[in-house]
Amino acid sequence: MLPKDSVIDATRDALAKEGEWALQYGPTTGDPRLKEALLEKLKRDQGIDAGPENLLISAGASQAVALATEIFVEPGDVVISEAPTWAGAVRRFNHAGAKVVEIDVERQGLDTKQLERVLRELRAKDQRVKLLYLIPNFQNPLGVTTTLERRKRILEISNRYNIPILEDDAYYDLRYDGEFLPTLYSLDQTGSVLYMGTYSKIMAAGIRLGWAVADPEIINRMAGLKFEGGTNMFASQVAAEWTANGTLESHIDVLRGHYRKSRDTMLSALKAHMPKDAHWTRPDGGFFIWLTLPKGIQAREVAAAAADEGVIVSPGPGFYYSNRGREEIRLSYAFPTEHEIEYGIETLATIVKDKMKQKSSKRLGRKQGT
Amino acid sequence: MLPKDSVIDATRDALAKEGEWALQYGPTTGDPRLKEALLEKLKRDQGIDAGPENLLISAGASQAVALATEIFVEPGDVVISEAPTWAGAVRRFNHAGAKVVEIDVERQGLDTKQLERVLRELRAKDQRVKLLYLIPNFQNPLGVTTTLERRKRILEISNRYNIPILEDDAYYDLRYDGEFLPTLYSLDQTGSVLYMGTYSKIMAAGIRLGWAVADPEIINRMAGLKFEGGTNMFASQVAAEWTANGTLESHIDVLRGHYRKSRDTMLSALKAHMPKDAHWTRPDGGFFIWLTLPKGIQAREVAAAAADEGVIVSPGPGFYYSNRGREEIRLSYAFPTEHEIEYGIETLATIVKDKMKQKSSKRLGRKQGT
Repeated sequence: MLPKDSVIDATRDALAKEGEWALQYGPTTGDPRLKEALLEKLKRDQGIDAGPENLLISAGASQAVALATEIFVEPGDVVISEAPTWAGAVRRFNHAGAKVVEIDVERQGLDTKQLERVLRELRAKDQRVKLLYLIPNFQNPLGVTTTLERRKRILEISNRYNIPILEDDAYYDLRYDGEFLPTLYSLDQTGSVLYMGTYSKIMAAGIRLGWAVADPEIINRMAGLKFEGGTNMFASQVAAEWTANGTLESHIDVLRGHYRKSRDTMLSALKAHMPKDAHWTRPDGGFFIWLTLPKGIQAREVAAAAADEGVIVSPGPGFYYSNRGREEIRLSYAFPTEHEIEYGIETLATIVKDKMKQKSSKRLGRKQGT
Repeated sequence: MLPKDSVIDATRDALAKEGEWALQYGPTTGDPRLKEALLEKLKRDQGIDAGPENLLISAGASQAVALATEIFVEPGDVVISEAPTWAGAVRRFNHAGAKVVEIDVERQGLDTKQLERVLRELRAKDQRVKLLYLIPNFQNPLGVTTTLERRKRILEISNRYNIPILEDDAYYDLRYDGEFLPTLYSLDQTGSVLYMGTYSKIMAAGIRLGWAVADPEIINRMAGLKFEGGTNMFASQVAAEWTANGTLESHIDVLRGHYRKSRDTMLSALKAHMPKDAHWTRPDGGFFIWLTLPKGIQAREVAAAAADEGVIVSPGPGFYYSNRGREEIRLSYAFPTEHEIEYGIETLATIVKDKMKQKSSKRLGRKQGT
């Protein structure tokens, strides 16, 4: 689904118009033309009303997370995160020496009761929480979306405890069912949300462009840590052209149609092939389905056996800060074709069933004393 | 001197050949095709014989400096640097909380006698030096090149004291006179040199591509800190195409001819217009001439007055870690046309002479008691 031809066109047009500029160093907070086009898109699609002083262009959302971590988190500081969550955030917060407290995610999103309990306990121990990291839409890796009610509840709680929120919204535009929900950033009245997005899922990961939207003071502090200077002006001009000339908008429509079908194919295949003791999430958007294996079946073993058959899945533990997720697997329908999805799920199901048989025959063996 | 048309061609060719790949995430140490093309260039031009395991692609040389600093320097650690030096390094080392010891640069390059004295003193105080930061070719901002003899001496000393060297060679290819000198990296036998270069000066700064060449262990540690993942694959594929198809080589030739003329124009203009109490360096390459103003003339005042006339120069203090350079100015002949260079130097000289007159009339006034 990579938009090769339209990127070639956009490069030609961008360099023809803005060549001298595209090939020079740029402002640390990002190319003004890209910022202008992106602010318009954020207003139209995300309902985010922000100005250039609120926006920082980064090398993918990854860099935005890294910069935000550098600003908010010192070694030993407490960070609260959904669990499981994006593996890149796990690596980043661990590297920063943060003490990460994991909160479970339910079908409606973050478990806000657990959040409140944890915050009360931390307050009793006089521990301040420096950051709350969330992926409200089609969470990576769960595929779960936090409901509007819970979003409001999260803001109410975080405001009460004065905790900045890092809202990672990499998948916002890739909704296949239901209504678009307002972002925490746009619901918030207090300037305590740092909103992040990326061109990786809606244009191309190789263009390495992401963004952070926040209070100007936060944006300036992040810019002060961007020692490599302005983010790739060449890629920025191409993305600006591609965004401003309407290609982004129509490409997102194409992606929605394509990925919706891929998701449906994967959900049907799971229903058709998986044993009844396995269960899985049903995402309204994004790339991922989270599969919980039957009790006692090890995700790493299943993933290794699947890889031998050319089927790539991600075992659960990489998505937790603690040593959990050993019977969980992340499935992605973003890259494979429909045929590959069907083959992949059928293969995976066969492996799972085989492991179950091995397990029950061992148990049987033990019972019979052989 | 930005190669707009050839970059459009390279983009079209790169995406036509490697589009799927160019628009995807890439390996953290860099796009293999770019690395291959660059290793060939480094061997041919820089005389650096290295493999892909020695090479990391970064977001400009700035990111390579930032990553190297993160690896080698903890707050309070001693770093040795030429002074004046690149303002980006000053900011980076200061941000890292390094205790920077400045070493003067003479006409032959780093003052190695001073270096030895400083190292003896630090050893006596039991202070270990964590990094030696150098720009051996056409140093930014001085324009001075470290001689071959001094390069060997620096290596001998740094090996004796077991100090890693960060060799910033952003201007290597832009030599206008004299012979190319071997890099510290290629002279070194001990694996203690981290060599850095950039596409910023030989292709375009907006492409944001630089590189580090070092021991695989160092490269892996730097890659481990690249939280934003592989450096821009889109820009990388374009640069790879541009490097592999011979455009880089011929573009460097064009740049050499162009910048040589610009440098000569600036040197002639300085000779024609500057008062005899001012003196300046005569670079064999690179972008910069370092101007020392007549005693008592303040660089910041001169720069502010020049800016009012549309002439942009950089006052000295930004290039020192300590509060020095107040009567020094960096001149760049990289961007202005020949006409602009002549106008700029004449304007600057007029301002300097005016300041001298004001000063001497004040002094005269004081002497006469008025």
